[in-house]
Amino acid sequence: MSKITEFQKVLKKKKIDFFIACNIDYVGIDYDMLYFSGFEGIGALVVPKNKKCFLIVPRDGIVKARKSGIKFYVLPKKKKLFEFIAENVSKNKIKHKRMGINKEGVNLLVKDYLKKCFKKSKLIDLRKELYKTREIKTKTEIKIIREGCRISDNILKKCFKEFKRFKREAEVMAFLEYESKKRGCGLAFPTIVASGNSSSEVHHTTEDVKLKKGFCIIDFGIRYKNYCTDTTRTIYLGKPTKKEIIMYDLLLKVQKNAIKNVKKNGKCSKLNENVKKGLDKYSKNFIHGLGHGIGVKIHELPNLTERSKDIFQEGQVFTIEPGVYFNNFGIRIEDDVLVSKNNVEVLTKIGKSLLIID
Amino acid sequence: MSKITEFQKVLKKKKIDFFIACNIDYVGIDYDMLYFSGFEGIGALVVPKNKKCFLIVPRDGIVKARKSGIKFYVLPKKKKLFEFIAENVSKNKIKHKRMGINKEGVNLLVKDYLKKCFKKSKLIDLRKELYKTREIKTKTEIKIIREGCRISDNILKKCFKEFKRFKREAEVMAFLEYESKKRGCGLAFPTIVASGNSSSEVHHTTEDVKLKKGFCIIDFGIRYKNYCTDTTRTIYLGKPTKKEIIMYDLLLKVQKNAIKNVKKNGKCSKLNENVKKGLDKYSKNFIHGLGHGIGVKIHELPNLTERSKDIFQEGQVFTIEPGVYFNNFGIRIEDDVLVSKNNVEVLTKIGKSLLIID
Repeated sequence: MSKITEFQKVLKKKKIDFFIACNIDYVGIDYDMLYFSGFEGIGALVVPKNKKCFLIVPRDGIVKARKSGIKFYVLPKKKKLFEFIAENVSKNKIKHKRMGINKEGVNLLVKDYLKKCFKKSKLIDLRKELYKTREIKTKTEIKIIREGCRISDNILKKCFKEFKRFKREAEVMAFLEYESKKRGCGLAFPTIVASGNSSSEVHHTTEDVKLKKGFCIIDFGIRYKNYCTDTTRTIYLGKPTKKEIIMYDLLLKVQKNAIKNVKKNGKCSKLNENVKKGLDKYSKNFIHGLGHGIGVKIHELPNLTERSKDIFQEGQVFTIEPGVYFNNFGIRIEDDVLVSKNNVEVLTKIGKSLLIID
Repeated sequence: MSKITEFQKVLKKKKIDFFIACNIDYVGIDYDMLYFSGFEGIGALVVPKNKKCFLIVPRDGIVKARKSGIKFYVLPKKKKLFEFIAENVSKNKIKHKRMGINKEGVNLLVKDYLKKCFKKSKLIDLRKELYKTREIKTKTEIKIIREGCRISDNILKKCFKEFKRFKREAEVMAFLEYESKKRGCGLAFPTIVASGNSSSEVHHTTEDVKLKKGFCIIDFGIRYKNYCTDTTRTIYLGKPTKKEIIMYDLLLKVQKNAIKNVKKNGKCSKLNENVKKGLDKYSKNFIHGLGHGIGVKIHELPNLTERSKDIFQEGQVFTIEPGVYFNNFGIRIEDDVLVSKNNVEVLTKIGKSLLIID
């Protein structure tokens, strides 16, 4: 069953006439539109509960709309987007008493437009249902993410092989992103290269500064066929002390154990708890969640935080990324894993023994 | 007068207790927060009408918050973001009867949070006032954009110099972005490299395909110190026909004339009209607006479309980018210009005679 069909069942169950996703911002992305149609850009997607879905796109979106394989209408010149959406909803004999939306994807301006064009409609938030739909990946999605991870592995391998020539953090980032773009891939999020003191920041913004000695966190993900990957490796520039090696190896052991301990029907929060136990006295230095689902968006379900109520299920793809952060350094190791029928498959396969570049 | 002070005058005039901008999405940007504070990431900015503004940031935003130079409060663990905002608004003795927001920056989820934490507040949309504030650039902003354009010029020059070695569209894009990232700059928007037939698309998505003979549109912009640049050059791969050269030269003449005809206090729509006249029988092939303001966001005021009501004013920085699109090719030439006291300054200075790479 396709994800659209699956979602239409939700619409029927909740007696929602149609779901609408739209984007009015040239540099914005509506992830629901992207997920169901593969279309990125200004426009709207209408998913009726019991008819075929369609896109509304401006003239300069025609080529992309054609690639989506979904029926589309082209916004005529001088016609307003939301008026034209309403016209086509009506032409397709779709009721609009109850309209589904994603509260996170609709800003107050879009809401005004919707309210103006669908005067008597009730807007119903389907955020949770959408995230649940996106949480479990289809075979096709898994194939894409697996291939994305393979490409990302190759890029990281090449980067580490040539690492000696890099002098600055921005250079490493530029290299990784160049190799991604050259292969026709996008980026899942801004690449993090955090050396020296900066490795103690969880979300360091890479700048044009010298690579400093010590641990260097590299957090990198590509966007392949609209799906994200997300890998972190921490390498060492210079000569690590014994203490540093012990710290790295402890984190690595904990990360490997966490992967082993993913059990179908197990609680995500429990895994987070186990990791804290494994880190023992360093558990207070682990200051972020253990992981998150990945998909068309970099943060999806499940949530692997201590407060998570999610359960491990077949078809989920998520990160496992414990980290420890001190005053002057940090270490994080992150892989993408898939829960399959009988086991847990690690999709990012690049080695994770401490790489020392001296 | 700083832009914050200028905006606080608007707040006073409209009797708004404070303006709030917030971002709850790891990969999202709130442009108002970025504009007033330089802070990018999850968090919130509060601008009271008659007190100093402050940021609320999670623990992993501390380093960036410190760089902003603005007072900030760190969200304690286990505390909810919007509750903590409300607490600090109250601690700072700021009223919240009338709260200013930007309707485009607030999604329905954030609105729910705001409504929950500021129960009796009225939300007032300041979108237009914010865009008006951002429209006229300060001397500091102009200095940054001028430097951004200089850097972008250098990157494009390097790209054209080495163009012969590129075989694929994605390679050109990867090169431009690599050179940007290496210099510590970000991207203003996804780079467009559109060769052959693809040049007939206004917003082509660059893919990993061979560079085709014919016109090749390169639309590229960096983000330097949070400010965007935006340049388009159309080059020719192979040997152009006489007709093609004539078409290019006509567009170039029209573009140069448009720049010359920017007059302080003149109507933006009028300039668009003039360009249509200059293109004569090809005016129907000019299918997008003549230009747009640039700033922290790639599309700002003024609007240079035929329906625009904007007026040219000192301190505006915008693009002038006429284009013509046919069935199998397109040409666009775009510069960034500044309206200064006595004239119009072109900030992007890279040459625009037809570059032929054969």
